[in-house]
Amino acid sequence: MKLVTFRVADGAERLGLLLEKVVVLDLQRAHLVAAGCGHPALGGMQALIEAGKEGLSLVSGLRDVATPDCRYEVGVDARLLAPLPRPQQIRDCLSFDQHLIGCAEAIRVRMDLAEILPRHVSMIETMKSRPIYYKANRFAVTGPDTEVVWPAYSQLRDYELEMAAVIGQRVKNVTPREASGSIFGYTVFNDFSARDTQALEAGGGLGPAKAKDFDNANAMGPCIVTSDEFDPYNARMTASINGEVQSIGHSSSMNRSFEELISHISQSETIYPGEIIGSGTVGGGCGLEQGRLLEDGDVVELEVEGIGILRNRIRV
Amino acid sequence: MKLVTFRVADGAERLGLLLEKVVVLDLQRAHLVAAGCGHPALGGMQALIEAGKEGLSLVSGLRDVATPDCRYEVGVDARLLAPLPRPQQIRDCLSFDQHLIGCAEAIRVRMDLAEILPRHVSMIETMKSRPIYYKANRFAVTGPDTEVVWPAYSQLRDYELEMAAVIGQRVKNVTPREASGSIFGYTVFNDFSARDTQALEAGGGLGPAKAKDFDNANAMGPCIVTSDEFDPYNARMTASINGEVQSIGHSSSMNRSFEELISHISQSETIYPGEIIGSGTVGGGCGLEQGRLLEDGDVVELEVEGIGILRNRIRV
Repeated sequence: MKLVTFRVADGAERLGLLLEKVVVLDLQRAHLVAAGCGHPALGGMQALIEAGKEGLSLVSGLRDVATPDCRYEVGVDARLLAPLPRPQQIRDCLSFDQHLIGCAEAIRVRMDLAEILPRHVSMIETMKSRPIYYKANRFAVTGPDTEVVWPAYSQLRDYELEMAAVIGQRVKNVTPREASGSIFGYTVFNDFSARDTQALEAGGGLGPAKAKDFDNANAMGPCIVTSDEFDPYNARMTASINGEVQSIGHSSSMNRSFEELISHISQSETIYPGEIIGSGTVGGGCGLEQGRLLEDGDVVELEVEGIGILRNRIRV
Repeated sequence: MKLVTFRVADGAERLGLLLEKVVVLDLQRAHLVAAGCGHPALGGMQALIEAGKEGLSLVSGLRDVATPDCRYEVGVDARLLAPLPRPQQIRDCLSFDQHLIGCAEAIRVRMDLAEILPRHVSMIETMKSRPIYYKANRFAVTGPDTEVVWPAYSQLRDYELEMAAVIGQRVKNVTPREASGSIFGYTVFNDFSARDTQALEAGGGLGPAKAKDFDNANAMGPCIVTSDEFDPYNARMTASINGEVQSIGHSSSMNRSFEELISHISQSETIYPGEIIGSGTVGGGCGLEQGRLLEDGDVVELEVEGIGILRNRIRV
């Protein structure tokens, strides 16, 4: 199932099910039609996630409610938001080593150096031995078809082509095998990055901050596809700017699975429903690697096969 | 005013006002006695913060409600929790350079090196030019008088003597002067740190993760003292282990004010009520600097003059 959060003319956020590419079923309204009352699990994406399997079977049962006033057309009378507009927390992992190696090499060339920077050597070495990740600003989330206003303090504007897993169950001290049941679903994630600021902050050693935390820097969407319908290790990933393909990657090149990442994070640490685990950028999946950074007006489209297209416009 | 979150025998979290060192006024119950009904702003610390000045004047008006069933004795019939048990987000800044310099030197000695590590040189240089900070795990919060179970993956256990500002107003693009009105209050913050894990993660360049994110790693309390009653730049800070003083610092040595930190963070980035901004560790304020790490059963007490004492026991 492809689940969305959307808004219609009245302005309230609603939970929806994508029936076709652009037709969304208002789940709370469908429940009202079918059962004569609303249901708390359909109050929003976080509520549905917390309702677990019961919530998903409720949604499944509503699929065929056919009254026209339960259905909206995306882009006509409904606008999609980030599927989980306010995640409980966001960790973004660097789990495609080819992206790190590609960035290190691109920076070496830009800086006209003989060798890649020592901090990149260190990052590559470290990520071989353990997952590395940072925590993103959970309030900086935006959805599809929005404008991302670039901060005035940055001139080197970049996208990052990623997937993200949405946690569905509270876990602690789980093995990778046990972690697999904890994933509610997956979405497309664009971790917009101010590369000049990132370089300044890198020396501080505490991870990216102003480089990746500005408002709307974490674009997600267009939907969350539930775990049962998506194989995160067999998806073509593509980034386009103004309709021209820039990056092509494949999720099979992920060095660590989401299950391994969750298992690692969960050691002595509880992970809760509604938390987000980013895959990190696929190899070749950013403008720094491709030699094409973003300019005012650029429209960035990230597509992950089996999830959908996440489109945002840059405003400088 | 000193505001707390506490729990009595019925188990529910309640919002309280510390009247004396160990007497807490149940604010919702006091409102019920005084006005015949509850008030949504007294439903919890987050609700009170969001209610702004109106909320604080409501609390102030309840101070003298004297019926005994509104009052509890801490440690007898009430247990204090973290004053804001689930912060909206936590950023911890490194704003005392003497701590960083002290840690770099302690590690140099431990490793028997001629010079401090290159990454420490880089951190010191970077923090001169801009605030550096990482985002902590907002679910890893604990309150006073709890046990912190140390992760099995770490043997080098440390405390960090800090203060934290609690954001009261939504801000974006503010100057330091404008930022001053955005601080609701202050609490004591112990950023428990797995030093061995921190060293392993440092090479990854994305900031601390398993080193500082394990359950209960972020201890806060015992109260939030409101901004009008506390000068964050004139407070003695002390850390003791098992009653023996280990660290003495003073908040006047902070290199950047909370207002400067908030101003920096707020550029192109919205900060919301209920977010936490840690000061970073005061110079000399951790065991690594003092040559005394933590062992099973150690009781760590952090005191910030004007706020109170935050006490936790280590369990290995």
